[in-house]
Amino acid sequence: MYYIGIDLGGTNVAAGLVSEDGKLLGKASVPTPKGAGQVADAIETAARQAAAQAGVEVSDARSVGLASPGSIDPEGGVVVHAFNLGLDYVPLAEMVSQRLGLPAVLENDANAAALGEFVAGAGMGHKSLVAITLGTGVGSGAVLGGKLYTGFNYAGMEAGHTVIHRGGRQCTCGRKGCWEAYASATGLICSTREAMEAHPDSALWRYAPALAQVNGKTPFDAAQAGDPVAQGVIDEYVEDLACGLANMINLLQPEILCIGGGVCKQGENLLAPVRLALNREEFTRDSARRTKVCMAQLGNDAGIVGAALVPMYR
Amino acid sequence: MYYIGIDLGGTNVAAGLVSEDGKLLGKASVPTPKGAGQVADAIETAARQAAAQAGVEVSDARSVGLASPGSIDPEGGVVVHAFNLGLDYVPLAEMVSQRLGLPAVLENDANAAALGEFVAGAGMGHKSLVAITLGTGVGSGAVLGGKLYTGFNYAGMEAGHTVIHRGGRQCTCGRKGCWEAYASATGLICSTREAMEAHPDSALWRYAPALAQVNGKTPFDAAQAGDPVAQGVIDEYVEDLACGLANMINLLQPEILCIGGGVCKQGENLLAPVRLALNREEFTRDSARRTKVCMAQLGNDAGIVGAALVPMYR
Repeated sequence: MYYIGIDLGGTNVAAGLVSEDGKLLGKASVPTPKGAGQVADAIETAARQAAAQAGVEVSDARSVGLASPGSIDPEGGVVVHAFNLGLDYVPLAEMVSQRLGLPAVLENDANAAALGEFVAGAGMGHKSLVAITLGTGVGSGAVLGGKLYTGFNYAGMEAGHTVIHRGGRQCTCGRKGCWEAYASATGLICSTREAMEAHPDSALWRYAPALAQVNGKTPFDAAQAGDPVAQGVIDEYVEDLACGLANMINLLQPEILCIGGGVCKQGENLLAPVRLALNREEFTRDSARRTKVCMAQLGNDAGIVGAALVPMYR
Repeated sequence: MYYIGIDLGGTNVAAGLVSEDGKLLGKASVPTPKGAGQVADAIETAARQAAAQAGVEVSDARSVGLASPGSIDPEGGVVVHAFNLGLDYVPLAEMVSQRLGLPAVLENDANAAALGEFVAGAGMGHKSLVAITLGTGVGSGAVLGGKLYTGFNYAGMEAGHTVIHRGGRQCTCGRKGCWEAYASATGLICSTREAMEAHPDSALWRYAPALAQVNGKTPFDAAQAGDPVAQGVIDEYVEDLACGLANMINLLQPEILCIGGGVCKQGENLLAPVRLALNREEFTRDSARRTKVCMAQLGNDAGIVGAALVPMYR
């Protein structure tokens, strides 16, 4: 049996034809247009292309799952607000269902990505997983007891909006000191800029001659070249990242905690010091059965695969 | 069908005979003795008394559930370390099972209390609940998707050991800035003492002439009498408490979040400002479907009732 998954991004609409064990059999991508009808049309086009690439018809699929950013109403299948996409109160599931002739479900993109990793990535063969994505924000999702966990109102697993520095840096959600404000790529860039302004002599300025040129790689590059200011930024970043990860572990004790997103391209550069911090911070640090912390495996495909399988794991 | 529940405390061993819908039909309590065999004997005595009070035999019960503080191994039924009880690697489930002739299971006391509230207290008729107990520490447990949630290694839901002030006050767990270090009664007492030392003229000194006399009621009493220093302590306490509660809500979005423990005797004195803070801090503050925050209902009976029902909800 086949399932269609759609990952609705600000730049592209990505579609995949997925088997029930999470294999991506066909894949297509079209630019994200403006306007609700146009987005639904683009989803239809991408879905038909993905099915064709796999050599099957859309009608061979059992359902279509839509992963959307922003605020959504999964029960009604409505995208409530998705500022990046310019969508407001759009009954996207119904619109896509009519175009493809298939039942359609809607899910938060971070939750879908977690489900993808659970079925076909870092969580394969395990029973529970928390997935954290370090990007513009800190995305998070969980599969607990074999089901996608979203809370009673489908708004759950906003790990990025748990506070680790009460009264700290302003977060986009309105709170101060959220994990996201420190551990996201945006948070790392913010910390790097603050350090550069405080240290006009830092080698960071050689890697980013203007503050606007700082990206998530800048502090890692400068630290590797021996710049102590950059190393300080990384050290604090690792502490903030590990603090939130230890919070998730102490609370949820998932079998697997995987981390993805651009910052994770640093690999063991990042994971090794994070593990050291966790060895100090975890409640279960002396236990034989600890959460396995690892990298996410599916990259950008996690959202497509997870979206496709939402009907099986809700 | 009947179930026996045991709440193993540092002072008393409390036992209850419980119906499958969580009604407490008989109850007994004996002082907690020293020594593993003696503790098991005391559990047997209390269980038989509770059954007798309900007019039934222990053999009429299907099982016995043990709620223990400290570090436990629920799979093996072993109390690993319970410092308050002086127990170390004690196979308590097996010892009790032999004495009572019933299958026995072991669970963490905060998890058992959460289950009790779910079945017969604040969570009655709802599908998910997080229970927070503000005592010496911050106890916590959750029932998600109709099952007691404890993580893959049964060590889960240590909400008290999630950090809200990274680098802050030393916690007993080894981390710095844990929610427990601020939001527990111990944390409140610590903050009150700090404020008294900093303000020798505060009216707090009238309510507790020596630092050792401060308890969780002291700052509330002095604040109610108009002392600004005490009010400052309460205001910060409310912010810390609400910070952790908002973290739990943003992450887990349970249908019910109940708060118990001695500090909660303050009732609306405490809950009203906490709700104000949550209206500012919750990710879903503008949503129609928000977690209901309320007081726990079962008091000290929650542990007995929950322990009894563990076999049905694991």
